[in-house]
Amino acid sequence: MQETLLSDDAVRDPAAIAAQLAAKKYAADIVEALNQLEPQDAASVLGRLPAERAVELFEEQELNDPAGLITQIPEEQAKAVLNGLSADRATDIFQQLPPVDRTRLLSLLAPENRGPIESLLIYPPNTAGALMTTEFVSVPSTWTIGQTLQHVRVVEHTRETIYAIYVLDPYRRTLQQVVTLRRLVAGDPNASIVSVGRDPITTKPLVDREDVARIITKYDLLAVPVVDDKNHVLGIVTVDDIIDAIIEEGTEDVQKFGGVEAMDEPYLHIGFFEMIKKRAGWLSVLFLSEMLTASAMQHFSDELEKAVVLTLFIPLIMSSGGNSGSQATSLLIRSLALRDVKLSDWWRVILRELPMGLVLGAILGIIGTIRIAVWQEAGLFDYGEHWRLIAATVAGALVGIVTFGSLVGAMLPFVLKRLGFDPASASAPFVATLVDVSGLVIYFTVALIFLKGTLL
Amino acid sequence: MQETLLSDDAVRDPAAIAAQLAAKKYAADIVEALNQLEPQDAASVLGRLPAERAVELFEEQELNDPAGLITQIPEEQAKAVLNGLSADRATDIFQQLPPVDRTRLLSLLAPENRGPIESLLIYPPNTAGALMTTEFVSVPSTWTIGQTLQHVRVVEHTRETIYAIYVLDPYRRTLQQVVTLRRLVAGDPNASIVSVGRDPITTKPLVDREDVARIITKYDLLAVPVVDDKNHVLGIVTVDDIIDAIIEEGTEDVQKFGGVEAMDEPYLHIGFFEMIKKRAGWLSVLFLSEMLTASAMQHFSDELEKAVVLTLFIPLIMSSGGNSGSQATSLLIRSLALRDVKLSDWWRVILRELPMGLVLGAILGIIGTIRIAVWQEAGLFDYGEHWRLIAATVAGALVGIVTFGSLVGAMLPFVLKRLGFDPASASAPFVATLVDVSGLVIYFTVALIFLKGTLL
Repeated sequence: MQETLLSDDAVRDPAAIAAQLAAKKYAADIVEALNQLEPQDAASVLGRLPAERAVELFEEQELNDPAGLITQIPEEQAKAVLNGLSADRATDIFQQLPPVDRTRLLSLLAPENRGPIESLLIYPPNTAGALMTTEFVSVPSTWTIGQTLQHVRVVEHTRETIYAIYVLDPYRRTLQQVVTLRRLVAGDPNASIVSVGRDPITTKPLVDREDVARIITKYDLLAVPVVDDKNHVLGIVTVDDIIDAIIEEGTEDVQKFGGVEAMDEPYLHIGFFEMIKKRAGWLSVLFLSEMLTASAMQHFSDELEKAVVLTLFIPLIMSSGGNSGSQATSLLIRSLALRDVKLSDWWRVILRELPMGLVLGAILGIIGTIRIAVWQEAGLFDYGEHWRLIAATVAGALVGIVTFGSLVGAMLPFVLKRLGFDPASASAPFVATLVDVSGLVIYFTVALIFLKGTLL
Repeated sequence: MQETLLSDDAVRDPAAIAAQLAAKKYAADIVEALNQLEPQDAASVLGRLPAERAVELFEEQELNDPAGLITQIPEEQAKAVLNGLSADRATDIFQQLPPVDRTRLLSLLAPENRGPIESLLIYPPNTAGALMTTEFVSVPSTWTIGQTLQHVRVVEHTRETIYAIYVLDPYRRTLQQVVTLRRLVAGDPNASIVSVGRDPITTKPLVDREDVARIITKYDLLAVPVVDDKNHVLGIVTVDDIIDAIIEEGTEDVQKFGGVEAMDEPYLHIGFFEMIKKRAGWLSVLFLSEMLTASAMQHFSDELEKAVVLTLFIPLIMSSGGNSGSQATSLLIRSLALRDVKLSDWWRVILRELPMGLVLGAILGIIGTIRIAVWQEAGLFDYGEHWRLIAATVAGALVGIVTFGSLVGAMLPFVLKRLGFDPASASAPFVATLVDVSGLVIYFTVALIFLKGTLL
């Protein structure tokens, strides 16, 4: 879309780009254009824009690599931007900076901005503490609705959101109630603020962003307050930060399920060697585990020599186990993530997957038998005089492997969760690898049962 | 969690459950408890609750199978609930009803509720039109801020959201501006409403919910107006509906990537045979395609007879192709979904995946060579006198197959999108199957090159 966002002659001249972009109405559209540029060009443009505009752009979650950009723009502009950003966004950016840049840029902050950011920086990434902003509205419970509205009007421009107002105990400053702007506007100005408040739903600073997202979604909130053990409000997490977190989690779930380490940048922006690193690790681990298939095959090499015909169906049978396992895993990963299924439900899942696997295996077994019979009878391929026994072996192995695959695939997320790992680390390749080795053993065991005394 | 939500003696007595639940503070918590019950018990409880409470519960997106429940509660209660629901939620539920129930229940609606719902029912599921609510606040552009605030106070209780107010042309009733409640509250009551408005970002009724989510996320909106071709506001889609849509899309992406048809109900609530249907289809298609591996193996059966040792590495080599393909697919599916990568970027992706595949393949090739050499030299297994050539075959095939897998895996989402399908339909099993057949051909071709004149 670069063509539509920037005219051609502007493409390599930062001053011209800056002028063109400054005229755009929505920060989100400018960010989209900046993301198309090379990082040094984007930084050069950001350095030339008016400071207030640059602040707006750095405020956008969609801006690629804000930490890299802030180190590349002139120090004066960086100072203006960092002092102008909301506390939670600035913290986000500081968290992505290498220590040396972090120290240098922190020293550019005015003392009143530096305090909140330094206190937010202590929370680990992806927790409520790291996501929250300290810029919210709070009032003592002794105020009226009219007083509160007046206060909201005055502080509005310095707060990230005013859609939820937190009512505090006037002495201990503990959280008592939450009032939505909606109820505030609809209420009688002379009534006490507590007449329109309700008990707040809160969270703690070290809670994972996924759980914060669950709370906001479940109760349809616009923001959730983060409180300490004494019920003092440390900050609030707003719905727009949570949407970005939900989308990122969705991406991570798909990437991990595909067997890649989660990436925090867009595909085309990740360096070649970083991408190699994120992919080669898992790929090598899977390869090393899959080597067990070679060992299993070596173990059965006598049988293989005697009945080479059996090898024809190895890929078919193995992949069916992997596929059924991958189906079950994808279902259970999301069920566990969305809390549709709890850890203690594992036996209910087994009771479903066992008959499920048997039926699915039987369906594939029937298809496989038909395939062999048709090829044999039509003279397309000769499986030898014992072709019926071979068909029975394939069908029997399919039932066993699909059932086994479904069970392993369904249980893997439970096992990972029980061991304290993210159930979403159960990738399709991981399941396939687990199932492949045992699939071979099942196949040759079934073959020994059906073919002993004939082929084997 | 059933234990903590309901006391034990209440578990089988709907009246007792209803009494216990009615005392709970948050609708979301009651819904969580109801979802744990058998459907007929949940319906029985919903039939006994006060009508206003039942409305609140049916309003919650998290309630399982609301359409099934509404048909099971007494007609008087169903009537009260359906007339009390917001238009968009009622439409949601009507859309899930079988035609006969739909007609019966529509007749229970008061005429003023029936009109909007019938007009919303014409939009296909998962479009902006189906998600939107008709209960929003609009004012003519001739009003002042004070007049608007007064109007908002009066209509507040009948509107789903008042956080965005739509300013219309007083004569043609076309959309001119949007004003947030925040700017309304902060503004001067005597100023014109247009002094605090801004140009609205809008969407059309037939736009897919994923694109609506993208607009709301990109511009950090609390709601987006849905307009017709003449710029009349048909309704608005609010951020909480969009969060549910984003989560559902994330689940669908993972399920489809796992090779299952998307499921619209929680795992433990789907009937056994429906689940079979959702899984057997894809599994059978994959199985039929994977049969090509048997054909490929049959084609190379002479080579197999001569060099059974080659079969030992078939699972290892094939799975590496599938794994690298599944990695590339998972990366590109999300990149396309989030618009990080556009359809026209396909050649940039190829230019990345080609060297990526070569490097990843070489890494695995080195590991594989070491494995064969160690086993051979340590006397763990005898690959024969030509073991060095076999190792070279395995390494060469790995480079070819991993490169091929990465390219196919990365291009599949592009091809699907180009053909008008959802790129997320590119599942890991689908990629693995595509790569398996060609992987065998690559393996045996490399073998013919390296082993011609010795083993083959």
